[in-house]
Amino acid sequence: MPSLYQIGTLHGDIHSTKDAPKYYTESSACGEIEIFAEYTEAIDGIKAGQTIVVLFWLHKAGREQLKVHPRGDKTRPKRGVFSTRSPHRPNPIAVSELEVLEVTGNRIRVKNLDILNDTPVIDIKMKA
Amino acid sequence: MPSLYQIGTLHGDIHSTKDAPKYYTESSACGEIEIFAEYTEAIDGIKAGQTIVVLFWLHKAGREQLKVHPRGDKTRPKRGVFSTRSPHRPNPIAVSELEVLEVTGNRIRVKNLDILNDTPVIDIKMKA
Repeated sequence: MPSLYQIGTLHGDIHSTKDAPKYYTESSACGEIEIFAEYTEAIDGIKAGQTIVVLFWLHKAGREQLKVHPRGDKTRPKRGVFSTRSPHRPNPIAVSELEVLEVTGNRIRVKNLDILNDTPVIDIKMKA
Repeated sequence: MPSLYQIGTLHGDIHSTKDAPKYYTESSACGEIEIFAEYTEAIDGIKAGQTIVVLFWLHKAGREQLKVHPRGDKTRPKRGVFSTRSPHRPNPIAVSELEVLEVTGNRIRVKNLDILNDTPVIDIKMKA
């Protein structure tokens, strides 16, 4: 398989996995996506008020686990990672739907974050 | 950036990009995701009737284009690829929400496909 390119970095207030909300649907945390200079022209058209789909590479997640307790709850039986939203999975990519608050140059301010500070961004698309 | 692992392959009826629906929300095409043997245990818990989020690596898409005409419509001005759902983007990953029709061993039969036959699958998660 080909390599991924990092297109930007998230700057946010979540500094450890224990502070992170379990799902973006349960978060109102804000932060900024910094797009690298060579990709800035690709954000043309993104505007405040839109919902964007952001793909993150979860650099702190494990890639070996194939079964997990859903939501880390040990009272629940283990399930395959592909039937959960666990960060641990063969390709630890998160898909978050985020509200755009502001776009300034190469920075996109967003809401509903459940992702750690300094996480690499690999893709952004419009919500379908 | 680390490398991706291919976890499976899509088997479907769409054989060329000109036959492909523009969006999964506009498709009722069916097909099967074949999960490779070493990852089969990770689909435990996926059942008919669920909606899964499937990440595909669009191996036929270009990675160089940063601006495109939305939906390929040349009457519309070019926009940054990150403000569209164009397959052409630095990391050509598609995110599709698909209805599970049946799970048999390492094969997941799904509906609403807009993805070419033989496309590599890189991740599956539950819908948030």
